[in-house]
Amino acid sequence: MTEINDRIGSYGFMVEPFHADFTGRLTLAVLGNHLLNCASFHAKDRGFGIGTLNQQHYTWVLSRLVVEMEEMPSEYDKFTVETWVEAVYRLFTDRNYRIAAADGRTLGYARSVWAMIGMDDRKPVEMTKVNDGRIMDYVTDYPCPIDKPARIKLAAPRLATTHRVTYSDIDINGHVNSIRYIEHILDAFDISYFKDTAVKRFEIAYVTESYYGDTLDVWIEEAGDKAFNVEIKKDGGKSTVCRGHVSFG
Amino acid sequence: MTEINDRIGSYGFMVEPFHADFTGRLTLAVLGNHLLNCASFHAKDRGFGIGTLNQQHYTWVLSRLVVEMEEMPSEYDKFTVETWVEAVYRLFTDRNYRIAAADGRTLGYARSVWAMIGMDDRKPVEMTKVNDGRIMDYVTDYPCPIDKPARIKLAAPRLATTHRVTYSDIDINGHVNSIRYIEHILDAFDISYFKDTAVKRFEIAYVTESYYGDTLDVWIEEAGDKAFNVEIKKDGGKSTVCRGHVSFG
Repeated sequence: MTEINDRIGSYGFMVEPFHADFTGRLTLAVLGNHLLNCASFHAKDRGFGIGTLNQQHYTWVLSRLVVEMEEMPSEYDKFTVETWVEAVYRLFTDRNYRIAAADGRTLGYARSVWAMIGMDDRKPVEMTKVNDGRIMDYVTDYPCPIDKPARIKLAAPRLATTHRVTYSDIDINGHVNSIRYIEHILDAFDISYFKDTAVKRFEIAYVTESYYGDTLDVWIEEAGDKAFNVEIKKDGGKSTVCRGHVSFG
Repeated sequence: MTEINDRIGSYGFMVEPFHADFTGRLTLAVLGNHLLNCASFHAKDRGFGIGTLNQQHYTWVLSRLVVEMEEMPSEYDKFTVETWVEAVYRLFTDRNYRIAAADGRTLGYARSVWAMIGMDDRKPVEMTKVNDGRIMDYVTDYPCPIDKPARIKLAAPRLATTHRVTYSDIDINGHVNSIRYIEHILDAFDISYFKDTAVKRFEIAYVTESYYGDTLDVWIEEAGDKAFNVEIKKDGGKSTVCRGHVSFG
């Protein structure tokens, strides 16, 4: 872990064999896992990590994640993830990422939106007032030239797949973990999309938690050329778990 | 990566948040992934890694994996995996592992059996004749006090779950990856097994590859107190993909 400057964290990775898909490229789910880990490392090193917050009975919650890749690294490739805080709002913060190849060229960017909530009442808190607003000291305008998350609406989607939540889906909070939704969304597409093209932009907005035994329906609607809006619902369609967007290119 | 001696490789890890299950312990699937990576690192550093073999049109195939844990490390815990070659037979090699906590105490052991095959004809080759039999130089009798894999037979199993193979299951060889079977087997058990107990011993023997679109049936049969034999079949039960054993304790 080297620091580009005090505000930007940079973390090194290598594409492990079981983290590559059938094309030999890193999977988006594993990249997502790395991004969230980097968020955690970066925040921890600067005094606003989840451990520090938990002591004060607050915690971080991921609200949105957008990843846009020009190229995914291949099996055994080394790559780095840079992360930084772009903005702090009253109830949200924008954290961005740059994914770079070993030779330094940009492979892609990502954006995430986080809320801070009370551990007991699960209600959003004003993060500028928590922990002496320390997070404000690290805001930087390092460039992240991809679109911010958009509002995703589905009008007449089709039911693509159904997944019953299993043991392997559940994290330490008792919820389906944020990364598993990425897999469940991508698994709703025919494998030919990944053969002839690759995921160019992926977007997910988390709405409601889901739990062991829930049945998740994955709904898909076309939204342009090789672009799709996605919604995962539970309780027979009564509640939305998350919405997403996938563009292949 | 430090070496205990020239024959034993030792590799450090940390339990990442998304690699822990709902109890906060490392998942067996992620541990399995680490073990296979360590095998790969160890072999590569000693001149019989998959890259070297591929140049000669041979490759490694995992045949069996057994993991027996006293205790799984928890979220954010550091731990190490040691690996070494216990024996080289004509067509197989036994590679063992010790999993240790940061303070050095043993958390568990694992055993794996590998074959070497020709990349073109997929037939087993005599590994003592490949690459000047270099692997023979690294055999060591470092202790691994857990039972070797046993022959698993099911007499009257019940169908526990069915899983249709998706994009996320498939690795660079176009097969369902070895680690995913661990998840599919564990996901066939009710979550209460993981709440009240933990997996004490897990065994898997790989028989036939499965592919995108295959439907995998997971069959389970009791084999003692909180112990189960498992078989994954495809093609409507016509062919066995793998067999396993899971003991909770």
